Amino acid sequence: MYVVLKPDLDPEAQNRFIDELKNAHLEVVALPGLDRRAFALVGPPHAAERFASHPYVEELIRDEAPYKRVARALHPHDTLVSIGSLTVGGDAFVVIGGPCAVETPEQMQTIASQIRAAGAHGLRGGAYKPRSSPYSFQGHGIQGLVMLSDAGSRYGLPVVSEIMDAQDLPHLAAHVQALQVGARNMQNFSLLKTVGSQTLPVILKRGLSATLEELLLAAEYIVNAGNDQVILCERGIRTFETATRNTLDLNAVAWLKNKTHLPVLVDPSHGTGLAELVPPLSKAALAVGADGLLIEVHPDPTHAWSDGRQSLTPEAFSRLMRELRSLAEVIGRHMP
Amino acid sequence: MYVVLKPDLDPEAQNRFIDELKNAHLEVVALPGLDRRAFALVGPPHAAERFASHPYVEELIRDEAPYKRVARALHPHDTLVSIGSLTVGGDAFVVIGGPCAVETPEQMQTIASQIRAAGAHGLRGGAYKPRSSPYSFQGHGIQGLVMLSDAGSRYGLPVVSEIMDAQDLPHLAAHVQALQVGARNMQNFSLLKTVGSQTLPVILKRGLSATLEELLLAAEYIVNAGNDQVILCERGIRTFETATRNTLDLNAVAWLKNKTHLPVLVDPSHGTGLAELVPPLSKAALAVGADGLLIEVHPDPTHAWSDGRQSLTPEAFSRLMRELRSLAEVIGRHMP
Amino acid sequence: MYVVLKPDLDPEAQNRFIDELKNAHLEVVALPGLDRRAFALVGPPHAAERFASHPYVEELIRDEAPYKRVARALHPHDTLVSIGSLTVGGDAFVVIGGPCAVETPEQMQTIASQIRAAGAHGLRGGAYKPRSSPYSFQGHGIQGLVMLSDAGSRYGLPVVSEIMDAQDLPHLAAHVQALQVGARNMQNFSLLKTVGSQTLPVILKRGLSATLEELLLAAEYIVNAGNDQVILCERGIRTFETATRNTLDLNAVAWLKNKTHLPVLVDPSHGTGLAELVPPLSKAALAVGADGLLIEVHPDPTHAWSDGRQSLTPEAFSRLMRELRSLAEVIGRHMP
Amino acid sequence: MYVVLKPDLDPEAQNRFIDELKNAHLEVVALPGLDRRAFALVGPPHAAERFASHPYVEELIRDEAPYKRVARALHPHDTLVSIGSLTVGGDAFVVIGGPCAVETPEQMQTIASQIRAAGAHGLRGGAYKPRSSPYSFQGHGIQGLVMLSDAGSRYGLPVVSEIMDAQDLPHLAAHVQALQVGARNMQNFSLLKTVGSQTLPVILKRGLSATLEELLLAAEYIVNAGNDQVILCERGIRTFETATRNTLDLNAVAWLKNKTHLPVLVDPSHGTGLAELVPPLSKAALAVGADGLLIEVHPDPTHAWSDGRQSLTPEAFSRLMRELRSLAEVIGRHMP
Repeated sequence: MYVVLKPDLDPEAQNRFIDELKNAHLEVVALPGLDRRAFALVGPPHAAERFASHPYVEELIRDEAPYKRVARALHPHDTLVSIGSLTVGGDAFVVIGGPCAVETPEQMQTIASQIRAAGAHGLRGGAYKPRSSPYSFQGHGIQGLVMLSDAGSRYGLPVVSEIMDAQDLPHLAAHVQALQVGARNMQNFSLLKTVGSQTLPVILKRGLSATLEELLLAAEYIVNAGNDQVILCERGIRTFETATRNTLDLNAVAWLKNKTHLPVLVDPSHGTGLAELVPPLSKAALAVGADGLLIEVHPDPTHAWSDGRQSLTPEAFSRLMRELRSLAEVIGRHMP
Repeated sequence: MYVVLKPDLDPEAQNRFIDELKNAHLEVVALPGLDRRAFALVGPPHAAERFASHPYVEELIRDEAPYKRVARALHPHDTLVSIGSLTVGGDAFVVIGGPCAVETPEQMQTIASQIRAAGAHGLRGGAYKPRSSPYSFQGHGIQGLVMLSDAGSRYGLPVVSEIMDAQDLPHLAAHVQALQVGARNMQNFSLLKTVGSQTLPVILKRGLSATLEELLLAAEYIVNAGNDQVILCERGIRTFETATRNTLDLNAVAWLKNKTHLPVLVDPSHGTGLAELVPPLSKAALAVGADGLLIEVHPDPTHAWSDGRQSLTPEAFSRLMRELRSLAEVIGRHMP
Repeated sequence: MYVVLKPDLDPEAQNRFIDELKNAHLEVVALPGLDRRAFALVGPPHAAERFASHPYVEELIRDEAPYKRVARALHPHDTLVSIGSLTVGGDAFVVIGGPCAVETPEQMQTIASQIRAAGAHGLRGGAYKPRSSPYSFQGHGIQGLVMLSDAGSRYGLPVVSEIMDAQDLPHLAAHVQALQVGARNMQNFSLLKTVGSQTLPVILKRGLSATLEELLLAAEYIVNAGNDQVILCERGIRTFETATRNTLDLNAVAWLKNKTHLPVLVDPSHGTGLAELVPPLSKAALAVGADGLLIEVHPDPTHAWSDGRQSLTPEAFSRLMRELRSLAEVIGRHMP
Repeated sequence: MYVVLKPDLDPEAQNRFIDELKNAHLEVVALPGLDRRAFALVGPPHAAERFASHPYVEELIRDEAPYKRVARALHPHDTLVSIGSLTVGGDAFVVIGGPCAVETPEQMQTIASQIRAAGAHGLRGGAYKPRSSPYSFQGHGIQGLVMLSDAGSRYGLPVVSEIMDAQDLPHLAAHVQALQVGARNMQNFSLLKTVGSQTLPVILKRGLSATLEELLLAAEYIVNAGNDQVILCERGIRTFETATRNTLDLNAVAWLKNKTHLPVLVDPSHGTGLAELVPPLSKAALAVGADGLLIEVHPDPTHAWSDGRQSLTPEAFSRLMRELRSLAEVIGRHMP
C-alpha cells in the first residue's frame, strides 16, 4: 500500500496526517528522492483503506508487490557501485573470475595471477559454501577468506565472497570488498536486512525460481535497510530442461536494465553448468546489455573440489577475455 | 562420497584407516545406526578416490547427493515426532490449523476456540513473516508469539510458528512446541544447522523449486546436526500454471513416504492459494498417504492481513474435519 | 472479443446489427444455450472495438482467451458422456485399464479378461503410438485396432484408443467407442476440428505444459466444431522435478470441476511414471473429485514394449479396484 | 535400440543377419552415411535383446532416445539449407522478418518493401494461424498465401509460412519457399512425417516445454522420412516467469550448435513477447552463435491483428539490422 499526498500540502498538515496514520496502527515509510509525496504504509490493508478518501490524499495505490527505491522510473540514472577500486555500472563492462571454492593458497595465487594477466577486474572464491548435502565440502571459512584476500591484494584484484550467515559478517568485512548473497538465500529476508545495514557492496544473485519482481523486491529490502550499493546477478533459473544445469535467462538482463538503475551481472558458469557453453553465453551477456560477468576459473577443472564441469581453464578464460574486448568496442562498452 | 569398510575389520584396523583418511585432508563422518560400516567422507573427491582400492575398503560410493540418516532404506520404521502432547507419524492423521499471521489476541482466541471445537490437533500462526516486499506486514514478533501461545494453552492446542532468524530462537523456544522452517529458507543451511542443534521438533517446508532429493538433504542437515524430530511438508511447487498459486505435488507425498521414515504433512492452503480448492485437496492428501495437514483458517478471510484468499472460514474448516474423519476410517488412519 | 446485446432488442434489429458486424469483416459466432445475448466476434480487434459504444451493445468483452461452451458458469449441469454402454460423469466413478501399446492378440485377451474380472469399466490400448524417437515402436495400426476391439467385445468392455492423424479416423471409428487426443496433440488445432466434426466421444489429454485455460480452450475447439461429448484428462505436467516422470496436478482436477461441466479423468500412470505410486495417486484422484481413471495394466510389465515402469500388474490393479470401491462409497461416488 | 555389426562382416553374412532380425519381428532401419555399421531396430526391446551376444554383433546400444542423422558427431560438417536463393547455415547470418499474420495485400507489400530496404533476407507471415481460442482470427488461408508470395516475389524475398495440416501442403508448396512447423506441433509426428516426405526446407520450432533431445528427435523424424533440409528454431520455453511471454533459452543455441550439424535460428519476438526486448536479445542471439533470426515486424504494431506487443516497427527493425551488421563483422559472421 502506498499513499500519495496532495501536492500543495503544508508540512504541518502533513505531519498531522502521518500521526493519524500511525494512530491507525500503520507504519509510515518515507521514500526519499521521489518526486511525488509518496509513503509506503506497512500494516493491515483495511486500516490503510480507510484513508482512501481523506482530504489530504491524492491517491491510495493498492499495488501488492511494488519496488520503489530500485525502480528506474523513479531514479533514471544508472547506479555506480564501487568494489574496492573497481566501478560496476555505467558504460563499464567488468569481469570477475575465480574458483567456485577457495581450496589452497597456491590455487588462489595461481588463479589470481593468471586471470589478472588475462585482464580480469576482480577475484571471486567461496569460503562459506552452500552445498545441498551436509557431507559435501563446506568451505574453509575464515582461513579461506585469508587465502582469497592475500591473492587479491597481491595481484591488485578486489575480492568477492559469499555470506551465508550474519555471524560471519565481521570476518568477511575484514577480508573482502564485496559480499555475495547466493541464489538459495535470495529470500532469506533476515540476511538481506543484515547486508543492508552495513556498507560493503552486495552482489545479489537471483533465486532458482525467483521472478524478476521478487528479485527487485529482494534488492529493495537491502536498499530500504540503508545500503544502496547493490548489484543484481542473473545465474540461470530452474526449468524442465536437463541438458544444461540451469537455463540462463538473458531476457531477464534486458528487462532488468529497463526497470532498475542497479547494475546487472551474469554468471554463465552456473547459468549453463558446462564449460564449453561459457564463452558463447558470456558474449551473449555482453551483447544483451549486462554490466559484467562472474566466471568460474580453475587451473585444473577435473580436480576442482566443486563445480569443475563448469570451470574454464585459465587459457580458455584468457581467450574469452580477448574476444570480449573486441566485442565490447563495437557494442559501445568500456572494459577497464 | 561414502566409504563402506569390509565387514570383518577389527576396531583397531578401522581406527588406523580413519586416521589415514584424516591425514589425506578428509573429514570422516560416522553414520550411526546403519547396518553397514559406512562413513561419509567430506573433502575433495580426488582425495577420497585414492582409497578406492584400499584393502580395507569394500566399496567407495561416488554418489553425489545422497541422504542417509533420513532414508527409510536404512531405518525402516516410521519416525514419530512429538509436538507437545501431539504425536505426528505412524497411523495417526493430524490437522494443524490457524491464521497465516497472528493479528490480534482476540483473533487468536477466536480461531483457537473454533478449530478446537472442530477437532483440530494443533494451532499455527506466523509471528515472523517472510514477505516478498519490505513494505508488507512483517509480523508482530515476540508479541505475536505471546498471543499465539496464550491461545494455544487456553484451548489445549500445541503451537507451531516459523523461524526466520537464528537470533529469534530463544523467543520461539519460550512460546512454541514446534518450529517451522519456511519454503524460502529450505536451503538456508545456517538456519538448518541452528534448528538441528536444539531440541524442538522442526516442520521443514519444501522449497518452491526444490527437488525431492534436495528436500531430503535439507532434512539430513537437521538430523546430522543432532535433531531427529523432523517433519517434512509439501506446500506446492512453482510451475508455469497460473490458475492456482502453486502446484500441489501429491506425487511427492507418496514418493517421500517410500523413501524416508520421517512424517510428511501437506499444506493445501499454500499449495492451491484458493480456499475453495482446500477441502478437495485435503481429502486427496489423506488418500495419498500424508500424515496430516497444515490449514489456514481465519474468522473473516476477506479482512485477513495476509493470504485471505486461501483461508477457510471456521465453518468450512469444521465441515472439512467431519469429512476427513469419515474418510480416515476407510483409509485405515487414526484421527486422535 | 465478445459482444453482448441489450436485452430488449427485437430480432429484426439484432439481424441488422449482425449484418453491420459482418460488413466490418467480423465473423459472428452465436453461442447458443447462453442466457445472455452473447456472440463471439472473430477478426481484427480494432474492427470490433468500433462497436463498443453502439446503441444496441450492452457490453463489449475484451477477454483475450475465453471459453464459453465448456464453461460451467453458462451450463451448470454436469455433461454425461457415453462411451458405448458406459456413462462418464455425474456421480459415477469409472476405471479404464489396459496396456500402453497393443502388442499381441493374446496380450489383449489376457488383460481384458483380468481387468474385467477386477471390475474395470473400459479397455484402453495404443495402436498408433506417439513416440519421441522415430526408431521406437510406433504401434500396430489397423491390426492393433482389431486386436483391441476383439478383446473389448469378447469381455464386454468399451474400448478407447488414440488418434494421431485425421486420416486414421475411419479405421478408428470402425473399431473403438472413444477417441483419445494425446498430450502432444492438445494444441493440434486441425486434429481438434476433425474430432469435433464426428460423433465419437473424445478424451482430451492435457498438454505437458498446457495451462488449464488452454486445456479448456482446446475442448472449446471440439465442442465448437459440433461434438459436445468431450472428457478432459489430467496426466501430469512437466516441471523441474525428476524423481517422477511428470508432476500429477490434482489442483487441476478440483479447479476444472468448478469451471467446466465436462467430466475429468486422471491418468496416474503417466502422471507419476512409477507403478508403485499409481495406487496412492489413484485414491487421491478419487478423493479430489475426479470422474474416473485411465490406468496402464500389463501382465508382465518388465517385458512391456513401452512404459513398463509405470504399468500395474493385473494383481495390483485388482487390489487397487477393491480399495477404490470402499473409498468411493464414503465419498458418495458410484462405481458401476 | 541400435545394433552395430562387426567391422569385417561380408555383405552376404550381413544380409542373412538382417533377415534373422526381421524374422524376430524387428524392423531394421539403415543409417546411411555413418562410419560404423549401425542399424536402428524398431520393435519390442526384448526381441532385440536376444541378439546381444550374436557372433556378428559388435555392440547392442540400449540408448532409449537417440538421434543419429542430425548428430554432428556423425556428420561433422554444417548442413546448408536453401530457402529459394537464400542459404542458411555455415558462416552466414540471415534475418527473416514479417508480420505474425498476413492481414491485407497492402500490409504485406509495405512490410516487404520496408524490411527489404533494411536488408532483410526473407519474408515471413502466417496464413494458417494456430490460436489458443477457436474464436480468434485463424488466418486468411490460401488468400493469405497469395498475398505473402506476391509481396515476396515483388521484393525478391523468399517466403516462409506455417503448415498446420498435411492437407494444406499443396497450397503451401505452390506459394512458399520454406515450411514452418510451429511449437505446438513439434511432436505432431504425423505432420513431421508429412513434411519429411516432400522437398521444401522445414523450419522446426522448439515446443514450449520440449527438451533439446526431443527437439533433435523431432528433426530426426523429418530427416528419417527423407528430407535433410531442416532448420531448428529456438523461440522461448515456458517457465514460471511471467514478466516475459516466454524465456528465450540461448543456452539451447550454443548446446545445439555443438550437438547437431543443422542450422539454428532464434525467434526473439516470441521468445520475449516484448518489442523493446527484441533488439538486445537479437544481438545476444548473434553473439551466442545462432545462424539467423525470425523477427516480427509490423508497420502499426498497436493495430496488428495478433502479437502487436512483440512486433518491431520498420524503423526499429532497420536500426537493429544496422547494429547486427557491425556486430556480425567482429563475430566473424557474414550477413549477405
